Amino acid sequence: MKGPRIELLCVGTELLSGQVNTHQAYLSTALAAAGLPLAREGSLSDDLAEITGAVREAFKRSDAVLMCGGLGPTFDDITREAVGAALGRKMSFQPALYARIAKKFSRYRLPVPEENKRQAFVISGAEVLPNPFGSAPGQLLKSGRRMIALMPGPYAEMSPMFERHVLPRLKAAYARGRATAHLCVRMSGVPESVADENLEFLTREPAPGQSFTILSSGGQVDFHATVTASSGKSAKSELARLRSRIYEAVGEHVFGEGAETLESAVGKKLRRRGLTLSAAESCTGGGLGRRLTAVPGSSDYFTGGVIAYSNALKRSLLKVSARTLSRFGAVSSHCAREMAEGVRKACGSDLGISVTGIAGPGGGTRQKPVGLVYIGLADKQGARVVKLLRSGEREVVRARAIGAALHLLLRHLDRMRE
Amino acid sequence: MKGPRIELLCVGTELLSGQVNTHQAYLSTALAAAGLPLAREGSLSDDLAEITGAVREAFKRSDAVLMCGGLGPTFDDITREAVGAALGRKMSFQPALYARIAKKFSRYRLPVPEENKRQAFVISGAEVLPNPFGSAPGQLLKSGRRMIALMPGPYAEMSPMFERHVLPRLKAAYARGRATAHLCVRMSGVPESVADENLEFLTREPAPGQSFTILSSGGQVDFHATVTASSGKSAKSELARLRSRIYEAVGEHVFGEGAETLESAVGKKLRRRGLTLSAAESCTGGGLGRRLTAVPGSSDYFTGGVIAYSNALKRSLLKVSARTLSRFGAVSSHCAREMAEGVRKACGSDLGISVTGIAGPGGGTRQKPVGLVYIGLADKQGARVVKLLRSGEREVVRARAIGAALHLLLRHLDRMRE
Repeated sequence: MKGPRIELLCVGTELLSGQVNTHQAYLSTALAAAGLPLAREGSLSDDLAEITGAVREAFKRSDAVLMCGGLGPTFDDITREAVGAALGRKMSFQPALYARIAKKFSRYRLPVPEENKRQAFVISGAEVLPNPFGSAPGQLLKSGRRMIALMPGPYAEMSPMFERHVLPRLKAAYARGRATAHLCVRMSGVPESVADENLEFLTREPAPGQSFTILSSGGQVDFHATVTASSGKSAKSELARLRSRIYEAVGEHVFGEGAETLESAVGKKLRRRGLTLSAAESCTGGGLGRRLTAVPGSSDYFTGGVIAYSNALKRSLLKVSARTLSRFGAVSSHCAREMAEGVRKACGSDLGISVTGIAGPGGGTRQKPVGLVYIGLADKQGARVVKLLRSGEREVVRARAIGAALHLLLRHLDRMRE
Repeated sequence: MKGPRIELLCVGTELLSGQVNTHQAYLSTALAAAGLPLAREGSLSDDLAEITGAVREAFKRSDAVLMCGGLGPTFDDITREAVGAALGRKMSFQPALYARIAKKFSRYRLPVPEENKRQAFVISGAEVLPNPFGSAPGQLLKSGRRMIALMPGPYAEMSPMFERHVLPRLKAAYARGRATAHLCVRMSGVPESVADENLEFLTREPAPGQSFTILSSGGQVDFHATVTASSGKSAKSELARLRSRIYEAVGEHVFGEGAETLESAVGKKLRRRGLTLSAAESCTGGGLGRRLTAVPGSSDYFTGGVIAYSNALKRSLLKVSARTLSRFGAVSSHCAREMAEGVRKACGSDLGISVTGIAGPGGGTRQKPVGLVYIGLADKQGARVVKLLRSGEREVVRARAIGAALHLLLRHLDRMRE
């Protein structure tokens, strides 16, 4: 069963000047989950001839072409013009669309810049896709069995437009008579290479209709499994069989499925047990709090915390003892323990978590190298501390520390009786 | 002066299944710095017809094609075959090359897997590029003025091969008599569309040899200008002239150049003035602290802060008055002011910054909608508060609030006498 051919074209000179393309990872994952894998990706500079040529070629060999970027109001936003030229279609100014764009500016009492007029030009025959999070509307054009979608460049505008408007139309057009079932199993506390090895019996030579991806970041390993079959029922039952085999192999490391994140899994368990949490951060500087509060409604269980970057604050706000700081230092098991106990008391929460370490690039010594991190967890029974030691760049060390702190919380909550 | 056209093709189904392509960022940066900007990038699955077609097209329209991936020993490593087919060249087994590969295995007392024989096939006329860090040799083929380079997929093997063997050959072939100079000007407190309008006199019709890019994220707008000329001296002097014109147009918004970020610029100004800073965060949950501490050495001026997510902590740790919370609420100008004053006192710092707002998606009302954020800044003279009101997704509202807080700090520090 051969699927439709879908290509992605990302427009923006910045993608060819050092900026990492994260849209490709997001869109390819979402498409694979829908049983519509991406066949090719291209990144193009903001050059009319370049984009026009690439669109013409991609549209010739593919069923659907997805485009990101180049819909802004500025001189280098030329995706609309290039697609019009590639497909030999005229552009027309749509006063009603312009009025909608102007309304967004008036809401903030701003005059509409002359340049934003460009955003009200629509390719002949195209449907306008609403963009509630920015001024650039999307466009979707069908031509026979073929389809081309123009989406804005910023992730926060592109991803909701893709999920609400583009993906449903792709599914309707190309996924008939093909059903897919998708599962994403999320793991923590396990290295990617170990998870990979344990799952190799599935991934080395996938059975027809099955596909797998393994991805890792910030202490979390995600395993995606997609099954394509002729009916939803058979796709689902095959996926259910796969799911059991996946859990047999790596179930002990799994904390959730689907959209679950480490922080949302921690949040659910806290809420279910009626417990509150606070955080004391040194080397992560607020990053753990930021991740915990990325979950809407996290104020139900997260009270807040202390960023104790200086030793003075570790003493005054967290009551870490002078002896601990002078004898063992701020990056020590003792300090992590006292920070966790201290923040729990200062914030009046049931649990207190702490992070102290050496994120680098400077500050490392032979005894305490860059990458050394202590994580403390306190409750009314007492406190425990875990140690991490793996060097890396500053942001990598910090992200790993945050992941490990969330993993420790998760395991602690799992061990408690509900 | 038109430069050579260089394209990059990355081979690997994983790039179309959720893996982030970091080679593109690395190679495009290195090429741009050498005055050889990348014209296009493509990611291809491990499919013979797909790769063959893409190589044929890219080689036709470009001077040089760089390829990464698909040189391994396994069944899905087919870049060699695809390039041979695309260019109509035969492949030949090279016993001497095979002996070199076999020697690497013997060094680790391993038998040579049968599969690795594939790696000793070389495209007719190609030069073999040594790979000291893996078993896959690279290949470089010249055809008239054109060039195609095959490099291995793993970063640790690809990047040394690129730097030692591919980049020098590209420079020798295409960069003679061309030199480039590059400038990135970083701005805050200005909408991208306004910066763009002010710079349009340069960007609308760039002079020959000049190119421009404008990028925006998290409250920051970056303007890149690149000049290509026949000598380093003339490129530099033209860039110096451009720089003055850029500063005439948008200088008031510029906070730095090159690798400067909002948080590093704030840090420099604090350090220069010998001032310390602390932060009180509600809706950003630690994200402002995280950004301030992303700068190595930030402990010199950032003491830490309080994540006052709950009202109880706003009262107990920041001494926000009960009256303020009951009468105006936690999201109010009064509360932001008291949070900034409170954190300054609690942390004993010269400056205190605060953020309180409604990040959404829930919690908004008619009077206080999602996107309403107050930012407070306190010093020994007193405190001031600014208000933001722009809706968006949770993470966008939070990122904007952090950007605005850093911008407020920057402006405040600018106004102080050194």
